[in-house]
Amino acid sequence: MRFYGYFRSSSAYRCRIAFNLKGLAPEVVTVNLRDKAHRDDAFLAMNPQGLVPVLDTGTARLTQSLAIIEWLDETQAGARLLPDDATARAEVRAFAQIIACEVHPLQNLRVLNYIKAHHGQDQDGAGAWCRHWIAEGLAACEAIAAAQDHRGAFAFGDRPGLADICLVPQMFSADRFGLATDAYPRLRAIRAACEALPAFAEAHPARQPDAQ
Amino acid sequence: MRFYGYFRSSSAYRCRIAFNLKGLAPEVVTVNLRDKAHRDDAFLAMNPQGLVPVLDTGTARLTQSLAIIEWLDETQAGARLLPDDATARAEVRAFAQIIACEVHPLQNLRVLNYIKAHHGQDQDGAGAWCRHWIAEGLAACEAIAAAQDHRGAFAFGDRPGLADICLVPQMFSADRFGLATDAYPRLRAIRAACEALPAFAEAHPARQPDAQ
Repeated sequence: MRFYGYFRSSSAYRCRIAFNLKGLAPEVVTVNLRDKAHRDDAFLAMNPQGLVPVLDTGTARLTQSLAIIEWLDETQAGARLLPDDATARAEVRAFAQIIACEVHPLQNLRVLNYIKAHHGQDQDGAGAWCRHWIAEGLAACEAIAAAQDHRGAFAFGDRPGLADICLVPQMFSADRFGLATDAYPRLRAIRAACEALPAFAEAHPARQPDAQ
Repeated sequence: MRFYGYFRSSSAYRCRIAFNLKGLAPEVVTVNLRDKAHRDDAFLAMNPQGLVPVLDTGTARLTQSLAIIEWLDETQAGARLLPDDATARAEVRAFAQIIACEVHPLQNLRVLNYIKAHHGQDQDGAGAWCRHWIAEGLAACEAIAAAQDHRGAFAFGDRPGLADICLVPQMFSADRFGLATDAYPRLRAIRAACEALPAFAEAHPARQPDAQ
């Protein structure tokens, strides 16, 4: 397997955690988003959307981090990343989608570039925008996580899975954009439990060879 | 089953199509977003994120349209909405996520309200914003759909599924925001094939009892 990512991309970070939890070590190719390598013809031929991550499985090129992670879980050995029960699986997916569908796309580089170019926003305005959407999403995640009645250290039990895989990179983004996370004590506890595991620690952006 | 939706919500529209394709007719409760019914305490207790749709299955309250639709597909009889093959399933999910993660969240009411309140955008500015993101997402979807080598009428073959379920409401949104779709001939053909089916036609926002 060959994985096209970028150290700071939240969705590449999610996939790296999933690879580590599964015990997989794909070949990694850096697509430097700051240098616009994702807009090169060669990369666009592989992914018309021009976004990382892409996972080349040998027979297909998969895109979109949640689709990649579900594919890994369905086809690869190692720790299960989604629950076996359909209702529990729906709850984990919904938690992941709050982050992947409602928060992360709003703080993407292309969106920040747009509000700077077309809405006259400076770095402060872009930061306020990011903090607003991250705070709204994390508040929902905190309410959901705090309402769980299991005693596990992770979002949905005593093993990390898709929800935790999405949460940790999003909390890293909260730090990057200067959002204090004190209002989310349960999420902070989950993050601490995750980051104590090598699978999460080694996936951190600062630990990647392309970190700048 | 009880379904909390709103006629114009794209994500509720997706779920309605899925119910119809599955031959299900849940009780429908309208949550009037224009009247801010999604911010009521009673609704927030059910979904802390304050968004429709919510599906009350009798034993759980599921949120996020893609999670709801996968749950339906995994637990309910009727037409299959995702392929059996893991790679094909990942491709369908990725197509759906381009729309659900990268396009739709940017044109949500709460986001349009923000750029009007904080970025000084008027209706024209909000429209330009929506058209920009819809055009970018549909261009990626068109490239993916046009590259398929099957001869079926739908996005991924000869039966409609999750990709089509996400595509049709997104093209309805393109119309609403005044984006011409001539640049997406394959998507237009898929939409026409879908809308010829009662499952899609009857899910259309204009056909809902709460349509205003």
